[in-house]
Amino acid sequence: MDLTGGRPVVPSRSAVRPLGLGESRITGGFWADRQRLIGTATLDHGRQWMDKLGWTGNFVRAAQGAAGGVDRRGREFSDSEVYKLVEAMSWESGRLPSADREREIVELTGMVAAAQAGDGYLHTAFGGPGQAARYSDLSWGHELYCVGHLLQAAVARTRTSGDTDLLGVARRAADHVCAAFGPDGLAAVCGHPEIEVGLAELARLTGEQRYLDQAALFLRRRGHRTLPPHQFGSSYFSDDQPIREASVLRGHAVRALYLTAGAIDVAVETGDDELLGILAAQFDRTLATRTYLTGGMGSRHTDEAFGDDFVLPADRSYAETCAGVAATMVAWRLLLATGDPRYADTIERIIYNVVATSLGDDGRSFFYANTLHQRTPTFAVPDDEEQLGFGGGPRAAWFEVSCCLANLSRLTASLGAYVAGVVDDSLWLYQYAPGEIRTTLHDGRAVGVDVATAYPDDGTIVVTVTEADGGPWTLAVRVPEWAKGATATLNGEPLALDGHLRARHTFRKGDEIRLHLPVGPRFTFPDPRIDAVRDCVAVEAGPLVLCAEADPDGLDLDTVRVRTDRGPAAGDGGVHVAAEIEDPAPDGWPYATDRPGGPRSAADLPLLPYHRWGRRGPVTMRVWLPRA
Amino acid sequence: MDLTGGRPVVPSRSAVRPLGLGESRITGGFWADRQRLIGTATLDHGRQWMDKLGWTGNFVRAAQGAAGGVDRRGREFSDSEVYKLVEAMSWESGRLPSADREREIVELTGMVAAAQAGDGYLHTAFGGPGQAARYSDLSWGHELYCVGHLLQAAVARTRTSGDTDLLGVARRAADHVCAAFGPDGLAAVCGHPEIEVGLAELARLTGEQRYLDQAALFLRRRGHRTLPPHQFGSSYFSDDQPIREASVLRGHAVRALYLTAGAIDVAVETGDDELLGILAAQFDRTLATRTYLTGGMGSRHTDEAFGDDFVLPADRSYAETCAGVAATMVAWRLLLATGDPRYADTIERIIYNVVATSLGDDGRSFFYANTLHQRTPTFAVPDDEEQLGFGGGPRAAWFEVSCCLANLSRLTASLGAYVAGVVDDSLWLYQYAPGEIRTTLHDGRAVGVDVATAYPDDGTIVVTVTEADGGPWTLAVRVPEWAKGATATLNGEPLALDGHLRARHTFRKGDEIRLHLPVGPRFTFPDPRIDAVRDCVAVEAGPLVLCAEADPDGLDLDTVRVRTDRGPAAGDGGVHVAAEIEDPAPDGWPYATDRPGGPRSAADLPLLPYHRWGRRGPVTMRVWLPRA
Repeated sequence: MDLTGGRPVVPSRSAVRPLGLGESRITGGFWADRQRLIGTATLDHGRQWMDKLGWTGNFVRAAQGAAGGVDRRGREFSDSEVYKLVEAMSWESGRLPSADREREIVELTGMVAAAQAGDGYLHTAFGGPGQAARYSDLSWGHELYCVGHLLQAAVARTRTSGDTDLLGVARRAADHVCAAFGPDGLAAVCGHPEIEVGLAELARLTGEQRYLDQAALFLRRRGHRTLPPHQFGSSYFSDDQPIREASVLRGHAVRALYLTAGAIDVAVETGDDELLGILAAQFDRTLATRTYLTGGMGSRHTDEAFGDDFVLPADRSYAETCAGVAATMVAWRLLLATGDPRYADTIERIIYNVVATSLGDDGRSFFYANTLHQRTPTFAVPDDEEQLGFGGGPRAAWFEVSCCLANLSRLTASLGAYVAGVVDDSLWLYQYAPGEIRTTLHDGRAVGVDVATAYPDDGTIVVTVTEADGGPWTLAVRVPEWAKGATATLNGEPLALDGHLRARHTFRKGDEIRLHLPVGPRFTFPDPRIDAVRDCVAVEAGPLVLCAEADPDGLDLDTVRVRTDRGPAAGDGGVHVAAEIEDPAPDGWPYATDRPGGPRSAADLPLLPYHRWGRRGPVTMRVWLPRA
Repeated sequence: MDLTGGRPVVPSRSAVRPLGLGESRITGGFWADRQRLIGTATLDHGRQWMDKLGWTGNFVRAAQGAAGGVDRRGREFSDSEVYKLVEAMSWESGRLPSADREREIVELTGMVAAAQAGDGYLHTAFGGPGQAARYSDLSWGHELYCVGHLLQAAVARTRTSGDTDLLGVARRAADHVCAAFGPDGLAAVCGHPEIEVGLAELARLTGEQRYLDQAALFLRRRGHRTLPPHQFGSSYFSDDQPIREASVLRGHAVRALYLTAGAIDVAVETGDDELLGILAAQFDRTLATRTYLTGGMGSRHTDEAFGDDFVLPADRSYAETCAGVAATMVAWRLLLATGDPRYADTIERIIYNVVATSLGDDGRSFFYANTLHQRTPTFAVPDDEEQLGFGGGPRAAWFEVSCCLANLSRLTASLGAYVAGVVDDSLWLYQYAPGEIRTTLHDGRAVGVDVATAYPDDGTIVVTVTEADGGPWTLAVRVPEWAKGATATLNGEPLALDGHLRARHTFRKGDEIRLHLPVGPRFTFPDPRIDAVRDCVAVEAGPLVLCAEADPDGLDLDTVRVRTDRGPAAGDGGVHVAAEIEDPAPDGWPYATDRPGGPRSAADLPLLPYHRWGRRGPVTMRVWLPRA
């Protein structure tokens, strides 16, 4: 068994060879701060709430054969939160080993293992005394979904520790799924995709072909409406069209994205380049027509779903945190499969503007949905109060559906693995973070670099070679699509860029590449087909989407008109834009034959990174600002 | 007992005295066509579906004491659909008596009466064998809501026929409610307001003060969060703020509007002018900040709710048909109470653009939600298929939640009563429809007019005096706010307008007033705070909102840019506007530093009344058109 040094995704063939946490470490800066927050606050916070609400206790009660119908707590998918938490703990433990965390993982593993039925079935809400029968509600039961997260947790645990206790539980659960849903089993799928991506990675870890075959079988079955009709439509479950026939992601965003991630894994492992091309085209079209400027996906609250093309309302944007995590999973798999660094642009956009936005400064609160426009002032909720349901509202300590916190934790804790990769004899840097990378090229030659940068506050990235074998190899650094006018040097000499930085050189220890990205603020205009932000402008700075924030009794942001005849300016006080404040029309019927437009006064509007919004008490906020 | 000749609302004091179906008849034109459709198709359609789905059968089973927990069909509120249908049948029967319909009403009345418990309680989903206990789920049980509709149906039945059988059932039900929820009873409210407006009108009909007192008590109780917390928030139930403290309608639109209608009734009957002023201000602010151009209300699908101020997305507008009916109830009550004809403008906007839009040409299908922008082509659903849940989608024969059809039927069938009213010695015409009006002024003098018009296709309204007593009185005709440049004559002589037409004259039989309203197409621009339609224009013609419609393989409406440097034109082929078609940007990330804008070609864009949209096979549609 190849433990492969802490990598989330290990394709057996790929354009890019991913690095593990053992090869790529983030040592400081923007993301190290967030990893530290996760490790010191968020994971414990998650554990406390899952204990308090009985989500961990469900496993204990199930192991005791207690009458689960009465005693079981939480929603049908709460098991998966425990698994995601264990996965996040595993990555964190791989990043920064801790005996306490190790004990906690062992404890939780034991709790989970004890609840597993003799035949491998594992779910605390079904099949027990007083509970509904196993697989009696595939649309909403989330049984296979939970197993999928168990498999991902077990893969993470194994790859970061070598410990295989949880892997044993996962294999038994997967074997049960293969038996129950195999070619001779129930010809059905789970309402919430996730088992596919879990089975595929388990197959990669264990080398067991049958897990991959089962994942492929689930994919072939989906899209044939085996799930009963529902008010939200079959598209909600991605069950309206066979995967190969769809042209864009639709329905529940997280469901569609998890499914796509699993499908990419299967396409890669089975050498199905046609399917891979279809999936890449679906995701590309989703980026082109159904994605917010922040990289957020999903515009509909009702069903947490993608809207039609170009339906991207800012003032009720959903952009669920979990959809950001799921889209990162898809983009990373496409990057590995195709080698196209543009997918790293997508990851950068999402992690800086969705993932980093969600988590509160205390690491103990989070946004479930990430709106781009807050019209009424935000409000604080008590930190001991569970929010009912899911969806909009302020950062909160906990939601009845609390998928996002463990999800962003598992991504953030493993983020070192998303920083770099190897393509033949090129070492590629995909994300900019202070760190240390030590790996080998395709031919086994050892290479290493250190990265120093204050990105995204500053656009200079300094890459210093720390290990080289004396032969030529390529050090490549992604240049983001927004970074027009980027420049670079090698040991102080200008280096030409060809879209990206690709320096082929006989490197020596101490050689230094400097990449300068123009991270100053810039205007961004939307496609005119996005009605919701017509005639508006946004400001971005480097990878960051900026926003305007206002106190409740301060400026009415809905009356601001930004002047675009002069660019946004960066000064000591941060970024600001020239604006006009339009006196609103008096109250009355808001539609008139005369074109409205009241008197205006000049103003200087300060902006801040979107990920910083809502952190200083009640405010209103806008990303998209109407033009003067 | 005063049967008051078929009026929906009979305040004991008011600025305007409403006329009943016996005094005001619509004899032809736009609304007579729709009344005929309701009478010949819609009511039977509703009855057939309610029989087929067992909603009427629920009463039979309840009367038999059958195990309702298993056998009961439909949602908790299905009883109310039967009541609304009986109400609609009653108005229709009052408009155009029919022995068959009379028999049907008697049959349904008997069915309902038999299901009533000995103590007056009446609901087929609670309190029976195997069912949940009475009032065990006030948030969602809809028990008092259903009684409210029963009371309205009984009032309509009594006022249109004099028959009091259903009134007896209603009185017993109301007496039970007063006992169960009176000052010494359960200090609670129903999750869905409606009982208030029902009790108030029952009090008016019967002269029983205790019904009014109970309505007032329910109003005082609401807003104190007696309903348990819910994911949608207390605002969903209008239970977040006491009525007197709110400044705008919020939460579930139909709930908020029914509550407001009942509160106006109570304010009027108790002489509480302060409350009346607060309610008028809430509704006025709702019109100013939370209402679509069509008069549609409610912008959120998730909770069928009002959005924040100016959150009025066109491409996911909800604008539930029932909210249109409910807003008409509110506007009519405010018109009666204040005498302000502007509320008749509101009614006109809603009935022509929401109510008339919903019903299919066959009278057997309807929109539940009325979007202002259809991006993907509409599709037909089988006419024998019940649509799951509620909400968006095409006109359908039936929805699991089928409140809208009976609701629009009861309004349309009683619409004659909304045409005119008496203010002192003035006869006011509020709506323009061919018809006959015979009534008395405040001092008992008999007056009558006939109205002839092809409105809204043509803007000429001819009012001929058919009865006059030889003394002076005032014939007043509303002039809509949009009708700039309206002119009028009395017997061919010019008549000055003072905002409205008010002709004080010693009328003789045959005297003729002609009002000319400019119903030609005009551009309408939105308040710039409505982000969703920024830099767009709509076209209206008279009371009608127009729209553009396109075949799926025809024009891409999202690429149209309307020229506003020349007005919309009306010709033989209907209304059209000059437009440019913009080549869309190639697929890719839809946000760019360069301001987009492809090449454009000129086009002539035909428009049609919004209420006509979606009646000729699959189409896309836009009301708001981006400006060139």
